[in-house]
Amino acid sequence: MTAKHVTPVTVIGLGSMGTALGEAFVRAGHPTTVWNRTAAKAAPLVAMGARHAEAVEDAVAASPLVVTCLTTFDDTRLVLRRSGTALRGRALVTLNSGSPADARETAAWAVGHGARFLAGAVKNVPSAVGAPDTLLYYSGDRAVFEEFGTTLRVLGGDTVHLGEEADLAALYEMAVGAMLLPALVGFFQGAAAVQARGLEVTTMVRFAGKWLDMIKSLLPIYAEEIDAGDYTEAVSSVNLFLAGAAHDEDLSRETGVDTAWLAPLHDLVRRAAEAGHGEHSISALTEVLRKAERQHTYG
Amino acid sequence: MTAKHVTPVTVIGLGSMGTALGEAFVRAGHPTTVWNRTAAKAAPLVAMGARHAEAVEDAVAASPLVVTCLTTFDDTRLVLRRSGTALRGRALVTLNSGSPADARETAAWAVGHGARFLAGAVKNVPSAVGAPDTLLYYSGDRAVFEEFGTTLRVLGGDTVHLGEEADLAALYEMAVGAMLLPALVGFFQGAAAVQARGLEVTTMVRFAGKWLDMIKSLLPIYAEEIDAGDYTEAVSSVNLFLAGAAHDEDLSRETGVDTAWLAPLHDLVRRAAEAGHGEHSISALTEVLRKAERQHTYG
Repeated sequence: MTAKHVTPVTVIGLGSMGTALGEAFVRAGHPTTVWNRTAAKAAPLVAMGARHAEAVEDAVAASPLVVTCLTTFDDTRLVLRRSGTALRGRALVTLNSGSPADARETAAWAVGHGARFLAGAVKNVPSAVGAPDTLLYYSGDRAVFEEFGTTLRVLGGDTVHLGEEADLAALYEMAVGAMLLPALVGFFQGAAAVQARGLEVTTMVRFAGKWLDMIKSLLPIYAEEIDAGDYTEAVSSVNLFLAGAAHDEDLSRETGVDTAWLAPLHDLVRRAAEAGHGEHSISALTEVLRKAERQHTYG
Repeated sequence: MTAKHVTPVTVIGLGSMGTALGEAFVRAGHPTTVWNRTAAKAAPLVAMGARHAEAVEDAVAASPLVVTCLTTFDDTRLVLRRSGTALRGRALVTLNSGSPADARETAAWAVGHGARFLAGAVKNVPSAVGAPDTLLYYSGDRAVFEEFGTTLRVLGGDTVHLGEEADLAALYEMAVGAMLLPALVGFFQGAAAVQARGLEVTTMVRFAGKWLDMIKSLLPIYAEEIDAGDYTEAVSSVNLFLAGAAHDEDLSRETGVDTAWLAPLHDLVRRAAEAGHGEHSISALTEVLRKAERQHTYG
C-alpha cells in the first residue's frame, strides 16, 4: 500500500446500476474487481481498468469492501453462497431493493458467514452515480460506514448512515419510493390526455416540473401534521380533494384516458371525509392508510 | 386616470386562494373591489384597503378586469348570473378547477353576455401568490391576456398564455394536476410505514424531496419517449417496476399499512408487460392508459 491509501473494491452484479457503481470506483482510482453472472457485461469496465474475476469467490476475496448490486436480497445470498468462506472478514454492502424483513435476514446471514454488513440504496438513476448531490443511504454496522465512508462517498456526495439496524435503509427505501410509480402514472395519464388533444407531451414538462416543486414544498408541512397527529390547519383540505375527484371522471369521459386506477385513491379521500376529516388537511389520509383491517373492492 | 395607469380589479370568491389574489392586487396598488357570498370573509381585505361590494353586479361593474376564484365553473356562472348586464364589456378571468368541457361552456356563456374571457389556473398554494416564480397559466382571448398581462403578473411572475382555445388551461390543469393526489398518497403511505416503526415522519422529508427532484429529472426523458412513441431506450423498464410491485405487498404485511390502492397501478404495469413492453421504458404505460375500452375489477 502506498502513502495514499486507496481501498480495493469489488462490485458484484453489473446491470446498469452496478456498472455505474463500478465506473465510479474505477474513475476514483480504486483497484476494482467486478463479477457478473453473464461475464460479457464486465467488458466495458475491464476496458476502463477494472479486473474481472471468473469466480465469485475470487471477486469476494479480492477486496476488503464488497458491494453487491443484484435485483433482490434472495439473489444476493444465492450468488454469495458460492463464495464459500471468502466472505469472512469482508465488509459486505448491498445496494438493492427489498423489504425490511429481507434486509434483516440477509444481515443475519452475512454476520453468520463472518462478514460485517451494511444495506443501502442508491436514491437516483445510474447516470447520477458519483455526482456530489446524489443521495445514498445505508443502515447496519456503523463501524463499516465509518471505515469505508470515503470510499462509499465516491458513489454520491450525499451519503447518509440511518442507524445500526440493518433494515432501516430498506424501510426508508420503501417509504420514500412509494411516491414514484403513483406520481409517474399521474404524469403518464396527463400525457395521454394532452396527446388526445393533439398536443405534444413536452409542452407540459415545465409545468409538471414546477408542480413537483410545489408538492415538494408541502412535504415538511404534511410531515409535521402527521407527526403531531394534528390535521386542523389545512393548506388543502380533504373536501377540496373530494371535489377534485369528480374532475378525474370528466377527464376520462372527455379524453378516453383510463382513470380507473384513481378509484381507490378517491375512495381513500371519501373514507377520510367520512371519518370526520373533511375540513382537515389531506395529510389525514395517513390515518386511513394505517387502518388496513377493512377489505375493499374496486371496480 | 393618472399618468401611472393602475387597472382597477375585482376579485369574486374569497376562499384562501381568492383572498391571496385580492391581497396581491391591493399590495400592488390596484384599486381592488371584492365580493364574497359570506361578506365577513371580505373583512381582512377591506382592512388592507380593498372595497367590498354588497352586490355582485356592483362588484362586476367596478372594474374592467373581473377575476373569479370560485370552486367550479358552475358556481362561477351561478354567481355571475346575478350581475345582470354588468358583465358586458368586462374582461372575465376565471381561476378555478374544472373540465375542458366546463371551460368551453363558460367561455360561450361569458361571450354571450358580452364579456371577453380567459380561463386560468394558479399552479401553487395561496401563500405563493405574488412570488416571482409562481406559475399561472391562462387560455382564451389573447387580447385580454395582452391588455391585462402586467396586472395578471401581479399574481405570479411565471404567467403564461397557452392558446386561444378557452379550455386549454383546464386541459393542462387536469394533465399536470394528475400527479398530485397519487404522489401525496404515496408519501402518506411511506409516512405511515415510518411511523409504524416508531420513527418521525420528518426524518424522511429530505429524502422524499430529493426523490421528487429525481422524478422531475425524468419527466423530459419520458415526454420525449411518449411523443416519439419509442420506448426502447429504457432508463427504468416496465419489468423493473413489476419486480418492485412485490415489495409493496411486503410493506403492507410488515407495517400494517393499507397498500390496496396500489393494486390497479400494479395491474397497469402487468398489462404493459403483457402487451410486450416488459423491457421498454415505464413511460410505455401511457399506451395502456390510452386504451380505456377494457373494464377491470380490483379486489
